[in-house]
Amino acid sequence: MNIINLNRKNQNNPLEIFMKWLGSDIVKINQSILKNLLGSEPLISDLSNHIIGSGGKRIRPLLTIACSKLCNYIGTRHIELASVIEFIHTATLLHDDVVDDSKKRRGKSSANFIWDNKSSILVGDYLLSKAFRILINEGSIACLDIISKASVKISNGEVKQLVSIKNLHTNESEYLDIINHKTAELFSAACQIGGEVSEINSEKKKCLAEFGTFLGMAYQIIDDSLDYFSDFKTSGKSSGNDLKEGKMSLPLILCYKRCNKSEKKIIEFIITKNKTNNSDFVKVIELMTKYDVKQDCVKKAKHFSTMAVDSLGIFPDSTEKEKLVNLVDYLTYRTK
Amino acid sequence: MNIINLNRKNQNNPLEIFMKWLGSDIVKINQSILKNLLGSEPLISDLSNHIIGSGGKRIRPLLTIACSKLCNYIGTRHIELASVIEFIHTATLLHDDVVDDSKKRRGKSSANFIWDNKSSILVGDYLLSKAFRILINEGSIACLDIISKASVKISNGEVKQLVSIKNLHTNESEYLDIINHKTAELFSAACQIGGEVSEINSEKKKCLAEFGTFLGMAYQIIDDSLDYFSDFKTSGKSSGNDLKEGKMSLPLILCYKRCNKSEKKIIEFIITKNKTNNSDFVKVIELMTKYDVKQDCVKKAKHFSTMAVDSLGIFPDSTEKEKLVNLVDYLTYRTK
Repeated sequence: MNIINLNRKNQNNPLEIFMKWLGSDIVKINQSILKNLLGSEPLISDLSNHIIGSGGKRIRPLLTIACSKLCNYIGTRHIELASVIEFIHTATLLHDDVVDDSKKRRGKSSANFIWDNKSSILVGDYLLSKAFRILINEGSIACLDIISKASVKISNGEVKQLVSIKNLHTNESEYLDIINHKTAELFSAACQIGGEVSEINSEKKKCLAEFGTFLGMAYQIIDDSLDYFSDFKTSGKSSGNDLKEGKMSLPLILCYKRCNKSEKKIIEFIITKNKTNNSDFVKVIELMTKYDVKQDCVKKAKHFSTMAVDSLGIFPDSTEKEKLVNLVDYLTYRTK
Repeated sequence: MNIINLNRKNQNNPLEIFMKWLGSDIVKINQSILKNLLGSEPLISDLSNHIIGSGGKRIRPLLTIACSKLCNYIGTRHIELASVIEFIHTATLLHDDVVDDSKKRRGKSSANFIWDNKSSILVGDYLLSKAFRILINEGSIACLDIISKASVKISNGEVKQLVSIKNLHTNESEYLDIINHKTAELFSAACQIGGEVSEINSEKKKCLAEFGTFLGMAYQIIDDSLDYFSDFKTSGKSSGNDLKEGKMSLPLILCYKRCNKSEKKIIEFIITKNKTNNSDFVKVIELMTKYDVKQDCVKKAKHFSTMAVDSLGIFPDSTEKEKLVNLVDYLTYRTK
């Protein structure tokens, strides 16, 4: 990855620059989230605040804001809509953690670990319902259309992923279909909303939708790669979870396809075990290293992030566009 | 309950009459449900078909149909909207069964028992998202408004119920608030939708909303009562689940309030135990019998069902109204 890193644009922490740029909007999104949790049961607000406030990058709502700025939007609608995106994302995370039996989220205890699965399920339901309620009060049928489509696609993607668990015959195309549903769709919706409030033409709307989709694909490929190759000490992200869960993510798919017969048997044995241990993980990493899996995952992510950047070609050069391009670059080469 | 039963209107199986009346609409609702599951993952359609086709009474979607008939609606919109009500109800049931760790639903194996919790969580999410998607395609902002409000209220009610588990200080008013949220709201929404498509005046809409609320309250009180007093052989409904889960439903609240000090201690002991057994259940039933809990639950349900019937006072007498009134009566005195 170092070689590839040399091609990277010379930016000082692009995420920090991005976050600083949108700082006042982040504050407003947080206020909107808090306002929309007012009046709900204490368990709902406590649990929601735990996960929403647990140091996530807020990439998805910030994409709504950044895309609206790219389209020269002047107004306030983007704030509440961005918080809807965060509500939907949070609902998905809560249910994901129950489904995956996760104990950690962003380096901290997960909500289902602190409270319990029941609370996470029901609060997730509340947040999803509330997201639609906010949208209806907001009054835009176009935004409702975008987000409801995304919500169906996300849950369909989650089911697709569940069905593929421990299925070593899962192909790269099936993996791409899963992440297109479960991740890229919400990235795309977030970007589309930014264009929708700005009332840009349909060509530009289509480009923003594609930008989000491609960025989401790149983002998820890197996320799945980090689950094998991140260093907890520097990233706070624990690795090996996907292997434990038998999740058929890109690193494992590539590795298995490239293994010889006896190596394939090793992976089959590890995946079908009830509990994987550290030496299983080390063995898989060894095979992944042998077959250049890490580098190829980054290349494949780069393939999508290049398409994401090209999708912005319809927009004239601007500082907003530059910041979005730098964000794409940062997310593709991030190490946590 | 026998004495009260004597006051019951002399109807031959009012539910059957009701179902026969709406027979062709039931077929259409089923077709609409199947159509809306087309194209989803096989796991989604299999699991959904299992629970939707498992012999539920379809009370909620049929209320939409019956209320639209009461309002002389001529059209087809009510069918798809009724299937939305069933989708939301089914999503709730799937998550409820995971939260309650139920092995049975309507006398058959529950979806989480046949598949697993993960599948039930994710398919529930799909059905909720899909419900909103159908609504948006259907195009009525008023119906979206009604159902999104209901969806938030239901999930808030589910959380309220979760928080009250094993809390013997839960009052009757808190119980009524919980069932108002988790049950009566969807009954109310189902009835409101029937009025909404019929474009009746706002006074009548309000009355239909109230009718649904009061009927939902009565329905849930009886449901909670049957969890203690039903006979599995005749009803197919297993009893004692609420006690096992420490659910603070009306029978337990009334019983605990009426117990003397030493009896209170017995209930406290049973509720705080990790696993209740059959002799615990028998003991609680004994105390409930001593304190007329069963009869009083029916009386309290009757209080709400009377209000439900009175809510229909704004509508002129008709065979449709008569069938709705008979349904209220049947649901209040049902034994399964």
